[in-house]
Formats: sequence, structure tokens, C-alpha cells
Amino acid sequence: MTLAEEILSKKVGKKVKAGDVVEIDIDLAMTHDGTTPLSAKAFKQITDKVWDNKKIVIVFDHNVPANTLKAANMQKITREFIKEQNIINHYLDGEGVCHQVLPENGHIQPNMVIAGGDSHTCTYGAFGAFATGFGATDMGNIYATGKTWLKVPKTIRINVNGENDKITGKDIILKICKEVGRSGATYMALEYGGEAIKKLSMDERMVLSNMAIEMGGKVGLIEADETTYNYLRNVGISEEKILELKKNQITIDENNIDNDNYYKIINIDITDMEEQVACPHHPDNVKNISEVKGAPINQVFIGSCTNGRLNDLRIASKYLKGKKVHNDVRLIVIPASKSIFKQALKEGLIDIFVDAGALICTPGCGPCLGAHQGVLGDGEVCLATTNRNFKGRMGNTTAEIYLSSPAIAAKSAIKGYITNE
Amino acid sequence: MTLAEEILSKKVGKKVKAGDVVEIDIDLAMTHDGTTPLSAKAFKQITDKVWDNKKIVIVFDHNVPANTLKAANMQKITREFIKEQNIINHYLDGEGVCHQVLPENGHIQPNMVIAGGDSHTCTYGAFGAFATGFGATDMGNIYATGKTWLKVPKTIRINVNGENDKITGKDIILKICKEVGRSGATYMALEYGGEAIKKLSMDERMVLSNMAIEMGGKVGLIEADETTYNYLRNVGISEEKILELKKNQITIDENNIDNDNYYKIINIDITDMEEQVACPHHPDNVKNISEVKGAPINQVFIGSCTNGRLNDLRIASKYLKGKKVHNDVRLIVIPASKSIFKQALKEGLIDIFVDAGALICTPGCGPCLGAHQGVLGDGEVCLATTNRNFKGRMGNTTAEIYLSSPAIAAKSAIKGYITNE
Repeated sequence: MTLAEEILSKKVGKKVKAGDVVEIDIDLAMTHDGTTPLSAKAFKQITDKVWDNKKIVIVFDHNVPANTLKAANMQKITREFIKEQNIINHYLDGEGVCHQVLPENGHIQPNMVIAGGDSHTCTYGAFGAFATGFGATDMGNIYATGKTWLKVPKTIRINVNGENDKITGKDIILKICKEVGRSGATYMALEYGGEAIKKLSMDERMVLSNMAIEMGGKVGLIEADETTYNYLRNVGISEEKILELKKNQITIDENNIDNDNYYKIINIDITDMEEQVACPHHPDNVKNISEVKGAPINQVFIGSCTNGRLNDLRIASKYLKGKKVHNDVRLIVIPASKSIFKQALKEGLIDIFVDAGALICTPGCGPCLGAHQGVLGDGEVCLATTNRNFKGRMGNTTAEIYLSSPAIAAKSAIKGYITNE
Repeated sequence: MTLAEEILSKKVGKKVKAGDVVEIDIDLAMTHDGTTPLSAKAFKQITDKVWDNKKIVIVFDHNVPANTLKAANMQKITREFIKEQNIINHYLDGEGVCHQVLPENGHIQPNMVIAGGDSHTCTYGAFGAFATGFGATDMGNIYATGKTWLKVPKTIRINVNGENDKITGKDIILKICKEVGRSGATYMALEYGGEAIKKLSMDERMVLSNMAIEMGGKVGLIEADETTYNYLRNVGISEEKILELKKNQITIDENNIDNDNYYKIINIDITDMEEQVACPHHPDNVKNISEVKGAPINQVFIGSCTNGRLNDLRIASKYLKGKKVHNDVRLIVIPASKSIFKQALKEGLIDIFVDAGALICTPGCGPCLGAHQGVLGDGEVCLATTNRNFKGRMGNTTAEIYLSSPAIAAKSAIKGYITNE
């Protein structure tokens, strides 16, 4: 069986396979400032009490602090919903992007089934959790019943092997996006494995799972291992709980993969790979850095649920230390969470960014969705560590967005054009 | 003569008095991201080269980083204008609020005549500079010619005396706003003097000058003294220049004030004064703290060109250290400039704010003008250290805004209601 089939089988208590339709209990449900009001509205058409006030997490990250009257009122509605339903877990005042806030607060564990009112909910697949995005109506139903139904997805297996110091998780996932294509994994599970994946930190693994949706993927799964359990330890999960999780650990025997279980198997060797850059206007329009080097840029954004984590800030700071951002470029750095911001303060990373001339904003999604904090002007070009470069994504249909790793972003901010030097 | 008359007489080279209309050379002109595009447009209807590219300062502070497509394009136009006109002094990428950026970069000196495309340009009066706000058309004309005309204003003299440790510059100016009223100083100079003013730091003096416009004042003047010269030294003004400024020092003999020179003289004794709070919906609707104590709040904003300076952050941090912001309150802290942010980082103030649960935003105007970074929801209440609490100021006409010092703001953020305890 695939990882997806294994997790769902365990959950429903019987063996299920791709194509089966299952009704399933949700272990954790999440909505943010953009999706809670509509979810709450849908929920209220069904009942007046959420199924479990401890299994719901609400995060403000899309428009924080509120940037418009509409956003302010949506947040007000959400604050009222939280009080009324006595939702225990909420992170409202610049605590960060949901997809970082949930893992770092210990809400995510292997084998969980997680429903999120955000398309990048698949991020939690990095923990071996079946996590996927739902629309507000579905989320309302889940808030009411704690259940949903889904079709067990087919799986594309991605084996990533080889060694290459300059290649980061972001380069790997951009390469995968190129190989699979924007709709190559529609309603499928992506299952990432191989020795190169095993070596990645959780911060890097989350980058891979996060972008599964950019290929149409339902989930982006990585099996749990010691790296996963160490992360859980660090965020306060008890040894007892970890022992229990290990007992239920689902493992794919990489030496005996049964091709018949998979829709497709893709093998990637990073040994001779160049750094990857997604060009306008889609995350699968990916080129080697050597093909795009020299393209001038107006804005660089280091942050988001893809690459705003501590590991990312450490890498970016390494290149920015003692340097100045190019005169024609504005560099926006947004730690993915307040906890990362605090650690970055402690390590002197924020000082490095500020000294280099960067703008630091409140932890949250930042300019990624074009709502505020870095909307692009007509014809401007941005290099971002985010996950989407659709036309108009940063608020301007005439602007162009490139996607890269934090290393490339930092180096390019200094030079004023896309570069790996 | 009054301070205003003395400065303008010195400038035009002959004795002028209130009511005279003078043509005058501008020593420094400033516009920001909100006012540069229209000023540049007006300028281009006159000529194609600015009168002096070293005497113009351009700052982005109102919508940084760009929060809308319109803002992004206005900033793009401004960047192009700066390049085209070779404007030497520009502070674009989160450097801070213009009214802090200009003083801290040594642009402001006593006896200067300064024209700014922002109503709070009067802030620089704290340095004994005749500084006032102009509309974009006037600014365009000034960019073209370096000249403007103005009527020498009448002056209201405000003597502030007495001693009281708990009273800050903000309390004093709120008290003055109450006394003078919202249009009590229309097209007049306010001249602040007395022993209590002499004891204030430049950070505190700027608060008084900043809010002159809230009474309709053209300027808010404080004569230069050793405090002023020490500030100038700290921002890199040479001893030679300071000697020259001292030689031209304008002094009002406080023991021999000629009543006939003034439209009105107001005497304020702070000895038994309570902390002051401006209530909705005008800065002159000022009450003693004891009269408003207990009013519940949803948001607290510490920042702006009024009270986002180092002194303000130090005071706020004193009360917030080791404390948590109240559950029902969001606290937004925005250092007035990147330089203040850096110093606050160094002193550990940012850590204190973050630990208390505050949101830190990019240096700039923040939510003050209701553009972004803290727009209020329907019926919400905000306590702010800003200068204006007009209906709708923070983006919502049903919201209520109170104004106070950073001390009151910090204490209230912890308690969840307005308090001085």
C-alpha cells in the first residue's frame, strides 16, 4: 500500500485503496482569518455547537494586522466565534502563518487526518499526516460534525536521491513541479522518499509537502522518522506520546516498492542539479538558475508558509551579513511565526536583515497573496520564496514573480538581479 | 517680536510682523509616498528640473510596504521621479515616518523654513524651525521654484511651568489642545515656552510641535537651546555648524514677554495635573485620566510621528516588561524609524514587546491613518499614542479612538481598559 492508503486504512479501521470513497473522522480542523467567517456561517446552518472545541485551531495570518475595513470585520466575527464556541487553540495577534504555527505548537502528528480551510494545508504531510485543504462550506460541515468524506487518492511516488550541498528543499520541489506539471497530480497523493529526503530537516520537508497543491496534489506525504520525532520532542510532545506514535509508525520499504501500487514513480537525482527558479506565471515553469541569471528585480520577499522558517532565515542571513540590499531592490523579510521572530532576534538575524536594509513585517503571509505588505507596481518584478507566482498573485496582473530558495533570494537582493553568486 | 516673526524676519532680511505677506526661500522641502506623485505632477506643469535636488527629501511612510495596487504604483512613480530628478535624499524602504527620519538624519536645524507635503510638518518647530504643511500643488510649485509666499502668523504663547514626574509631553499637548480648542489657533503660530518645556527631551518636544496642527496652528515653535544642539551633535552636525547656529540663535526673553506681541498668552501649571486622554472624536475632547478610567479597549497602538520614538518605546517597555497584553486586546508597536528599531533591538525593547504579545510592524505611519496595519472593526475601541482620533481615522467610522501617552497606552494594554495603573 501507499502511505496515503496506509494512513486512511488505519483511520477507518479497514483496508482501503485508491478510488475507495470513505467517511472519515477529522483529528484536527483549522481555518484562518480569511476562511473562518464563511466556515462559521456554513456551520451555523447545521448546528450551534462545534463538534470538539479542542480539535479546532484558528489562526490570523492573511491580513495581520487588519489592512482593510472588511478584514477588520472578518477578524471581529472570528473573535466572536472563538468566544462563543470556546475554541481553545487560537493564534490571532501576529503569531504567524498557520502552516508554521500549527506544527510549532505541537498540533501536528503522524497519521493524523487534518482538514484545513487553506489550500496549503498539505504542508503537514511532512509529518506523515493526511492533511488537505477544504472550502469553507466543507469546513463548516466539519466544524459541525467532525467528519468528512473523501476518495482515497492514487499516489505518485517521488524518489529523490544523490548529494548536492547547494540544493535545498525548495530547489527539489521546484524540480518536482517541473517534472509533474501544474495538473499532473490532480487529486493524487504525492509521496516523497529517497535518501535526499531523509536528510532534510522538518523545515525543508515542509517546503516539499507545502507545494504538493501546486501540482494539483491532494496531499504531499513524507513518512515519519527520527527527524520527525525530534521535532515533536522540541515542541513539547511527551516521550510517552512519541512511543505510541512510533508503535503506529507507517513505513514504506523503499527497497521493495511495488510499482503497481503507484500511479507513477518519478526518480530524481540531485547530484548534478542546478538551483531551480520558477519563472512567471506558474510554479511549474521552472528553469535552471543558469537560464534565468541576470534578470533584474525590484522586490525580494523572503518568508511565507513555504520558506519563512528559521532554517530559511539562517541561510538568508548568511549571505546578507555585512552586505547591503541593492539600491533598486526592496527586500521584505517576514518570519513565518512570532516564535521564529523571537529566535531570529536572539540569534541576531533580524539585526543582519535590518542592517542590510530589509523591511521586517509582522509574522504572517505578507505579500504572498497580494493583500498588503508588498503589492507590486505595474511591470515590476519580484523574486519570492513563496509557492505561487500566478499572474496577479501579488496584487498586480502586469507584474512578474519568480520563485526560488532563500539562498538565491538573498544573493539576488544584493546584486539586483537573479543570481546564485 | 515672536519666535515666528524673528525667524521669518531673519529669513527675508527685513523686519516683518504678523499679518505681513512675504515671499520666502524654502530651505528644505519634503513629500512622502502619499503626496509626491501629485506634487511631481504639479511641478511638471511648471518646469522639468527641480530647483535644488539636495534640498528635497522624499520618504515612504504612509503605505510601506505597499498595501494596494494604487499605493504600489504611486511608489513606482515616486521612485522614477527621484531617479529622473536625481533627488539625493530619499528614505524609501521602511526607513520610518518622515517626521522622525528628517530630524534623525540631520536635515532639520533651527531657523530653517521648511515646507512639507504633510500636515504634521509642524513637528520640526521643536527645533526652532518654521516648518509647515502644504498641499501638493504648492509643493509642486516649491519643487520648481524653491519659493513660496505666506502671511506671517499671529502667535499664541503657551507657558508651561511646574514639575510633575508622571506628566509627559503628550499629556501637556493634550491639555493645550483642550485649552486652545480644535480651531483656536487657526493660521497662528503656537510658541511653547516655560521651565517645563525646557526640561523636555527633543523626542518629547516634537510631540508638542507635532500636534500644533490639531488646533489649526501653522507652526508649533520651541526655541533652540542646549538640548537642541546636543541632538544635532548626536545626528552628526559639525561643531562648526553648531557654533554658527548658536550665533544666530533666536531667544525669547521669558522674563520680559511683551503681551502686545501675542494674540493670546496661556499659562499652564503641570504640578497638580492628571495624565490626559483625548476622547472620541477629536484631539481637543480631552479629559483627565480619572474621568475615562475603565473604558474597555480592543486595540492599542504605540507609534506614529507623535509617539513612536525611542523615548516612547523605552517608557512603554518599562511597563510591559514581563507582562502580557490582555487577552481581549491586540497591541501594535511600530518604531517611528528603522534607526529607532535598531536601537530598540539593541536595548532589548523589541524582545520585551514581543514577549508581551505585541505585534511589531515595519517602521512607518502604521494604522494611524487607517490605511493598513490595524484597521478597526465595527464598534471597536482603540487607544493610540497618535495625534488624531477623528471619526473614521483608523478606517472605520463606527470605531472609537482615544489618544494618550505611551505610558497610559502600555498600562492599558495590560489591563484591557484605559488606566494609569
